[in-house]
Amino acid sequence: MGGESATRITPGNALRPEDIALEVRTGLAKPTEDVAEYALRLGDDGLILAQRLGHWISRGPELEEDVALGNIALDQLGHARSFLTYAGGASDKTEDELAYFRREHEFRSAAIFEQPNGDFAATIARQFIVSYYQFELYRRLTQSSDATLAAIAAKAVKEVDYHRDHSAQWVLRLAGGTEESRTRMIQGLKQMWPYVAELFADDELTARLAETGAAVEPSTLKADFDRLTGEILAEAELEAPDVPAAPGGGRHGQHSEHLGYLLAEMQVLAREYPGASW
Amino acid sequence: MGGESATRITPGNALRPEDIALEVRTGLAKPTEDVAEYALRLGDDGLILAQRLGHWISRGPELEEDVALGNIALDQLGHARSFLTYAGGASDKTEDELAYFRREHEFRSAAIFEQPNGDFAATIARQFIVSYYQFELYRRLTQSSDATLAAIAAKAVKEVDYHRDHSAQWVLRLAGGTEESRTRMIQGLKQMWPYVAELFADDELTARLAETGAAVEPSTLKADFDRLTGEILAEAELEAPDVPAAPGGGRHGQHSEHLGYLLAEMQVLAREYPGASW
Repeated sequence: MGGESATRITPGNALRPEDIALEVRTGLAKPTEDVAEYALRLGDDGLILAQRLGHWISRGPELEEDVALGNIALDQLGHARSFLTYAGGASDKTEDELAYFRREHEFRSAAIFEQPNGDFAATIARQFIVSYYQFELYRRLTQSSDATLAAIAAKAVKEVDYHRDHSAQWVLRLAGGTEESRTRMIQGLKQMWPYVAELFADDELTARLAETGAAVEPSTLKADFDRLTGEILAEAELEAPDVPAAPGGGRHGQHSEHLGYLLAEMQVLAREYPGASW
Repeated sequence: MGGESATRITPGNALRPEDIALEVRTGLAKPTEDVAEYALRLGDDGLILAQRLGHWISRGPELEEDVALGNIALDQLGHARSFLTYAGGASDKTEDELAYFRREHEFRSAAIFEQPNGDFAATIARQFIVSYYQFELYRRLTQSSDATLAAIAAKAVKEVDYHRDHSAQWVLRLAGGTEESRTRMIQGLKQMWPYVAELFADDELTARLAETGAAVEPSTLKADFDRLTGEILAEAELEAPDVPAAPGGGRHGQHSEHLGYLLAEMQVLAREYPGASW
């Protein structure tokens, strides 16, 4: 473990965005530029996914399920707030400034997070991939040399563990349900699987962060991801789709056509009142 | 207090829809036809409002606020699940059947719940009215002679108390913020206030329920609603808008044009797979 600052934030502590904002403002915690850029990636992932999932409140196949997806959306939004608040510490920006006043090419989310909900099976396929990825990532980040990243991850990993279980149960249920639901599950996985590769792609930033112990190279998570998702897929008598990877680029601001529409909806209100103190 | 059945449900107990479903299935709790119809009204109110509020996840003026509105949406959905589960006990229908397989004229929600979100101030105006109404209603329902209604209300009233405080704070903040936010708050209240009257309208059903002690006449809540919303409005230097009441009819299945669109979105998934065991 470790950490360069004498911060009261330690892994395992409940860590609210407000706590992080205070640490950042008082100088107790300040991300390096690399860590800030990395936190932006993780924060954007959660922010974009939260908006996609929020759509399902009262629109799922079961009311109980609508509550579950709504809770997952709020968990993801909570993680996003923490990561964005910390990221803002490098540039004196608030979470809200980062969420509502960046342009499309300044977002750092991977493409899978902005993929449209599609039908319910497609949403579950996206969530299945994302949850297993995030679990492996956050599990390792609890050991980060950056104490704030470690603390955010320590809280997030527990919640993502539930998301993982939730999506796995649905993969099994849809695959083992009716012929229609199985067909849709297969189709959903096929639709989302091209975006898996980007999640595990290393680049110069992750290489530098791995050197300092602040983060791990995404490629090192892939074996565990493959093994654990593979176990669920095998139980569902499914296989990981053999599809070509979509072009990545999200981590560097190149996004699919979907993000622009999503941001337009997300940002319209805050931009109607720039700087308003409400 | 009291209650006609020897149920283990007592006010104050945490009461999940699953618990109610079990009581209903085993015959420990069964609503009268009147109580079922009444529970449908309250359940539909929450269900419709939850979908409207879910839209705000990642789209509000502040990320913290998006989390708050998302939580309110999930609270409302939780109450709706309980009321609908109980309502279904009279007709052997599940909460999902009632939510996803009724037609527009079979819904019993009041018109305010289906009003479009409008801008943020309009959403807050709607929430302000709804929360103060629901608080007064649920507070009295904790004393219902129907033990299940009383137990649902006992859980809901605590959550709605928070919703009330949340919306009141926003009314004050918007009214006391910029000229623009104050104008929008005034406009929002003007837009939603025509739907207040319907919430407090008595009819034959509520008269019969009041006689058995299962519920109170809605009109008896109005004085407290006026007094308490009036205090907040006075503090915000606002007045309750002097606008004519919109035609009611929601409690008897006559809805504004908005409900059809909302239901189309809400029901499409479940209807694509009628009876699917997922």
